[in-house]
Amino acid sequence: MSERVQRDVPVRLGSRAYSVRVGRGLLGDVGPLVSSVIGGLDRAGASLVVTNPVVGGLYARTVVDSLKAAGACEVRTCEIADGERHKTLATVERVYDAALSGGLDRTSIVVALGGGVVGDVAGFAAATLLRGLRVVMIPTTLLAQVDSSVGGKTGVNRAQGKNLVGVFHQPSLVVADPDTLATLPVREYRAGLAEVVKYGVILDAELFELLESRTERLAARDVDVLTDVVARCAAIKASVVERDETEGGLRRVLNFGHTIGHAIEQATDYDRFLHGEAVAMGMIAAARLSERIGACDAQVERRLARLLAALGLEREIPRDVPRDRLERALAHDKKAERERVAFIVCSGIGAFRAERLTPAEIVAGL
Amino acid sequence: MSERVQRDVPVRLGSRAYSVRVGRGLLGDVGPLVSSVIGGLDRAGASLVVTNPVVGGLYARTVVDSLKAAGACEVRTCEIADGERHKTLATVERVYDAALSGGLDRTSIVVALGGGVVGDVAGFAAATLLRGLRVVMIPTTLLAQVDSSVGGKTGVNRAQGKNLVGVFHQPSLVVADPDTLATLPVREYRAGLAEVVKYGVILDAELFELLESRTERLAARDVDVLTDVVARCAAIKASVVERDETEGGLRRVLNFGHTIGHAIEQATDYDRFLHGEAVAMGMIAAARLSERIGACDAQVERRLARLLAALGLEREIPRDVPRDRLERALAHDKKAERERVAFIVCSGIGAFRAERLTPAEIVAGL
Repeated sequence: MSERVQRDVPVRLGSRAYSVRVGRGLLGDVGPLVSSVIGGLDRAGASLVVTNPVVGGLYARTVVDSLKAAGACEVRTCEIADGERHKTLATVERVYDAALSGGLDRTSIVVALGGGVVGDVAGFAAATLLRGLRVVMIPTTLLAQVDSSVGGKTGVNRAQGKNLVGVFHQPSLVVADPDTLATLPVREYRAGLAEVVKYGVILDAELFELLESRTERLAARDVDVLTDVVARCAAIKASVVERDETEGGLRRVLNFGHTIGHAIEQATDYDRFLHGEAVAMGMIAAARLSERIGACDAQVERRLARLLAALGLEREIPRDVPRDRLERALAHDKKAERERVAFIVCSGIGAFRAERLTPAEIVAGL
Repeated sequence: MSERVQRDVPVRLGSRAYSVRVGRGLLGDVGPLVSSVIGGLDRAGASLVVTNPVVGGLYARTVVDSLKAAGACEVRTCEIADGERHKTLATVERVYDAALSGGLDRTSIVVALGGGVVGDVAGFAAATLLRGLRVVMIPTTLLAQVDSSVGGKTGVNRAQGKNLVGVFHQPSLVVADPDTLATLPVREYRAGLAEVVKYGVILDAELFELLESRTERLAARDVDVLTDVVARCAAIKASVVERDETEGGLRRVLNFGHTIGHAIEQATDYDRFLHGEAVAMGMIAAARLSERIGACDAQVERRLARLLAALGLEREIPRDVPRDRLERALAHDKKAERERVAFIVCSGIGAFRAERLTPAEIVAGL
C-alpha cells in the first residue's frame, strides 16, 4: 500500500470547533476518528447512520463495521430516498422515527453518509432531535466534500422554495474520502467541480491557476489532486465560516453564481440541471455582470469560461429557459431583503465584492 | 391610572442576551418594546403573531395594533389549535406556511402570544425558518410567564414522547403582563402556581416563605403580588439558564418534580392532568423520596404539602393511575441516559442536589 496523503483542516469555531479530515481510505477509519473526537464511542448511546440506497449499498457496511470495531454499542442505519425533491420534512420525520424507535439518547451520534441531501436532512434531524445531537458528516460527493458538509448549514425545502426551513448546526467531525468520488456519475462529479471553481474565482487565485493547470488529472479523478483540492476548498470554506458563522455578511460571498444559479434551477423546476451545473452558468452570468458594472475586465469571464469548458461544464443558460420565470425566481430569492438582492460580483480572479442590485438589473445582465 | 409596577429581568447570555419585562398593561406597549430591542420595527420585514383562538380573541388586536403603531410594515396573524396534542410538526408546518406565504424574510419577527404550546411551536418555527428568525415571547399563562417563555427551549411532541424534537433558540424579548392572568381558567392558573412553588422549594427559601404568607392574595390573582412573583421566578430561571444554557447539568435542577410529573402525564395519556398538576404530585413524591434517601427531613414534605393545598393543588397521585405505566414511562424519560435517571432531590427548603436513581428506586418512593 502506498503512503496515504491525508489532510486535517481545522474549523475554528470556539466551543463548536471541529476538523475536516481528508484522505483516501479514511472511510475505513471512521470509527477511531469519531471515537477520538467524542471521547470514546463506547460511552455514547446508540448511533444512527443516515444514507441513501446507492451510497449505503456501496459504503454503509464499511462505516458501520468501523464504528462497531471502535466500540459503538449499537449502530442503526436509516436509508432515505435520494434526490432534492426528497429533501422535505416528511423525510426528516423518517429519520426522527428511526432515531427515536432505535433508542438514541442525548449521548448518541448521527452519521450522515452521502451527498448534500443526506447531509442536509440528517444534519437537520440531528440538530432538532432531543434539542441537538452530535452529527458526523461523511460526504461522498464532490459537492458535499467541498461545500455543504462544512459550515453547519442544514435544512429542507418547502413548497415556497429551497432550504426555507433549517438551522445552523455544526458537525463534530467531517470525514472526506476522495476514493468515494470514483463511483460518482460523471455529471455529478463535474457539477461538483463548479463549486471548486467558485472558490478559486472569488477567493483564491492560486487555486484557480492550479485548476487551470490540472484539468486533465481532475477529469481522471486523480486521487492526489482531489485530496489537495478538497482540503484546499474545505480550508477556504472554514476560513469564511469562522468569520461569519451564521451568514450575517461575509459568508454570502459563497453565493457567487448562486443567486442566478438558484433562479435557473427554480425556473426549470429543479429537474433539468444539477445544482453545480446551474451554478456554472450562474458564475458566467455573474462574471459578465461584474464586467458590465466595471468591477473587473473581460479577462475574468474569458478565463472562467475556458476553465469550465475544460472541465466539461456548460456555460450559457439555454435560450429555452424562460426569462420571466428567472426574473420571478430572483425576486423571491430568500437572500432578498425587500427590493434589492445582495449580489456578489467578481473584481478579478480571486477577489470579490458585494453589490445590491434589483432583480431587473441582474436579469438585464444575463 | 395608578402608578404601574414594572420589572425588568435581564437574561445575560452574551450575544443572545435579552430582557424579561414584567408589568401590568405591558401588552399595549409591545410595539415600542420590540422596536427598541431590535433597533426599529420599521426596518424589519413582515411580522407574524402566532396565537390560539382563545388568547387571540382576547389580546391579538392589542398586540397587532401596538406593533403597527410602532412602525411594523405588515403584521400577519396565525392561529393554531390549543392543547398539548396539537404540539406537533403538523402545527409547526401551519406556521411555516403562514410565514412563507406572508412574505417573512430574515429581518422579520415572530411573536408568540399565548401559553406554553404557542411558545414552543412558534419558537421552534422561528428557530427553523430561514435558519433562525427572531422571536418575541408574550406568555399569557402563569406557567409560560414563570417558566417556558424564558430560556429558549422550543419543541414539539412525537409519538414516542413529549418534546423529543426541538432546539434551543433564545427569544429577543419576553413580555409578561400579569393582567392576562385574570382570564385564565382557575385550574390552569393553579397549575401554574405549582411551577412557582417549585422555584421556591429547590432554589429560593425566601420565595417559598413569601408564597406561604400570600396564599390568599395569590388565590385572588392580586396583580402586585403576581408582578413580584413572576419577576422573581423569571430571575431565578434566568440565573439557572445563564449558567447552563443547553441543559448540560445545572439546568436539570428545574426538573424537580418533573421526572415523576411527566410519567404521571404519560401514564394518564396527557388528558387527565395539566402539566402543573402532575408536577405538584411529582414534587410531593420527590420530597418523600428525598426524605427517604436522607437528603432532607420530613419538614420539607409537610410544608410543601401545606402550601400546595392552600393553593388548591392535589398532592397525591390517585390510586387508579397504573403503577406499571408509571414505571415504564420513567424508564423512557428522555432525560434518562442508559439505565439510571438523573433525579433532582430536595435537600431542605430552597436547596437541592442531583442523584442518579433507577426507575425502580423512584417508583418505590411514590
